[in-house]
Amino acid sequence: MKWDEIGQMQCSVARSSAVLGDRWTLLILSDVFLGVRRFEDFQKRLNLSRTTLASRLQLLERHDVLFREPYQNNPVRYEYRLTAKGRDLFPVITTILNWGDKYYADVAGVPIVRTHKTCGHDIQPQLVCPDCGEPVNERNMTARARAPFANIPDVERGPFQR
Amino acid sequence: MKWDEIGQMQCSVARSSAVLGDRWTLLILSDVFLGVRRFEDFQKRLNLSRTTLASRLQLLERHDVLFREPYQNNPVRYEYRLTAKGRDLFPVITTILNWGDKYYADVAGVPIVRTHKTCGHDIQPQLVCPDCGEPVNERNMTARARAPFANIPDVERGPFQR
Repeated sequence: MKWDEIGQMQCSVARSSAVLGDRWTLLILSDVFLGVRRFEDFQKRLNLSRTTLASRLQLLERHDVLFREPYQNNPVRYEYRLTAKGRDLFPVITTILNWGDKYYADVAGVPIVRTHKTCGHDIQPQLVCPDCGEPVNERNMTARARAPFANIPDVERGPFQR
Repeated sequence: MKWDEIGQMQCSVARSSAVLGDRWTLLILSDVFLGVRRFEDFQKRLNLSRTTLASRLQLLERHDVLFREPYQNNPVRYEYRLTAKGRDLFPVITTILNWGDKYYADVAGVPIVRTHKTCGHDIQPQLVCPDCGEPVNERNMTARARAPFANIPDVERGPFQR
């Protein structure tokens, strides 16, 4: 399969990966959620080439994750803002940050502390079931293919099991 | 910055992206959580070259996300299994799936239905605060740099704000 055909696959992860499956895209999105909006700021913080940065911002704009808004005229300059679809990536970036904090933090501790304004505590958000409120993990969740799809593998062990 | 230097950055997303910032890696992990374990099965389902698949599996093994276990002798053949660190990626794959289901599902509906065994409901897991139990999103969460880190951008708008 060619890379640009991945977006055509039925699997939701496959389609999402056409946007998310790139190091720079993840880093740009992480910065956007920290409040970064301008080309020069991304470039300074991520230290990547202007060509690469421009191509990734264009990809995110094309996929309706970011939109451009002018913040200056003569010459006109743009800020990059999250669309509703982009804001919905907050859980993805958050869970990547949780994982990175757990496995890649220095002995000095995590580099960024997150606070839940609702209750004022420093937290790492967790996944729960919206119905029963109990934690969701790979052991208490199963998956099945919806007809007419048949994308669940025919393997010996069940889905989501170790 | 060179790609292989990204893993050296302090930011947890930067370090995680050395593992996650790749389309094939995301697709392989998604399949692993669905129960796929064998090289031939990955190759058949993802339809990628054996060289590419082997390189991604090696990367995941090198980063202690997957480990190999023999399931046959003469000749010896291996299955790929999730380590504890790999299982901790469940929230990442799950939130990517949520996002893909919301924005890339066909009119026929989502391709894979997920059930919470604890309560029996078909659900999409949600992010909440482990302290107060309320939902966490980009509007009610703030971030600050922990000393001696200073990786929060100096931009006009606060972190996590639109």
